[in-house]
Amino acid sequence: MKNFILPIERLISEFAKLPSVGRKTATRYAYHIVNMSETDVKKFCEALLDAKTNVRYCSICGNFTDKEVCNDCQRGDQQLVCVVEEPKDILALQKVRDFTGVYHVLHGVLSPLDGKTADDIRIKELLDRVNKYNVREVIMATNPTVEGEATALYISKLLKPLGVKVTRIAQGVSLGSDLEYVDEVTLGRAINDRREI
Amino acid sequence: MKNFILPIERLISEFAKLPSVGRKTATRYAYHIVNMSETDVKKFCEALLDAKTNVRYCSICGNFTDKEVCNDCQRGDQQLVCVVEEPKDILALQKVRDFTGVYHVLHGVLSPLDGKTADDIRIKELLDRVNKYNVREVIMATNPTVEGEATALYISKLLKPLGVKVTRIAQGVSLGSDLEYVDEVTLGRAINDRREI
Repeated sequence: MKNFILPIERLISEFAKLPSVGRKTATRYAYHIVNMSETDVKKFCEALLDAKTNVRYCSICGNFTDKEVCNDCQRGDQQLVCVVEEPKDILALQKVRDFTGVYHVLHGVLSPLDGKTADDIRIKELLDRVNKYNVREVIMATNPTVEGEATALYISKLLKPLGVKVTRIAQGVSLGSDLEYVDEVTLGRAINDRREI
Repeated sequence: MKNFILPIERLISEFAKLPSVGRKTATRYAYHIVNMSETDVKKFCEALLDAKTNVRYCSICGNFTDKEVCNDCQRGDQQLVCVVEEPKDILALQKVRDFTGVYHVLHGVLSPLDGKTADDIRIKELLDRVNKYNVREVIMATNPTVEGEATALYISKLLKPLGVKVTRIAQGVSLGSDLEYVDEVTLGRAINDRREI
């Protein structure tokens, strides 16, 4: 490159580490930072360090929080637990207003190819929780992928002997979609799991 | 919001200040930061502050640099000057390998509606430069927008009395494009500016 400016190159490669940020987007961000006032850049840095330092995992559910126990765990119905893969999945679920229960973050899925076994994700914590809070239902809301399905099945087999009801989020056609464009696996599932109206 | 975590919210609003980053993308970035190691977040911060502190404007062309005079100005032909609006435009032009001249960044365009007048952009510096380096040609490479065109015209009128050749980058159909989809203004310009083959 003709005009290599080390501090900018360094910042570009840092930005390029963010999810789905390529070199071009990272360059735009870096140029924007250089154009910002020094106060604003310092504020940005403080926010970064503050988030990294003060955000921890909730001791009950494993979601991010700045307290010992997160808001969801303080307020929600501890007998209804929704199991997800990552904290970001909770953001999506929180928009569903009629769910009154709490969450449980596995921090991953079973994935033998990546060396992720049952000991690497928070399954033990889930079992302890079911016993401790006398949970009546566990909703498996892992992603509808091969690994997500396998994890949901594995956990349900561990939970059933404890006498807890285990459910899986419904799979079928999305609301507002067009049957013409729905893939055949999803459509097959939608027909198999049809319900009486 | 049900699960408001102050340090994460703060980081999200900082990320949302970056160009074309909305709340959703900012949230993804913030969650990614919280999942990064503390060392990596510190490295990110250092890169931010380093870029802000050590990157300045080149004393000749006004582009970003970490030296007194940028690489382009040190190596390029100072008698052939390509005038652009912003430093990021130079990134695009640097990919054109057969340009041997130097750049001049205006840091804006004439835009009376936004209160940007000739004194707010680096026109005086350009005139000084033309005199000092005995420039033979100035290529106006401002964007092909109303403001960019007006700025190019305004500057060319100031430069002509100095006896310097002033040119404008060619406007016409993009290479590889399809005439069917070219807008009529561009196509009209392409026909008017046709050249003998």
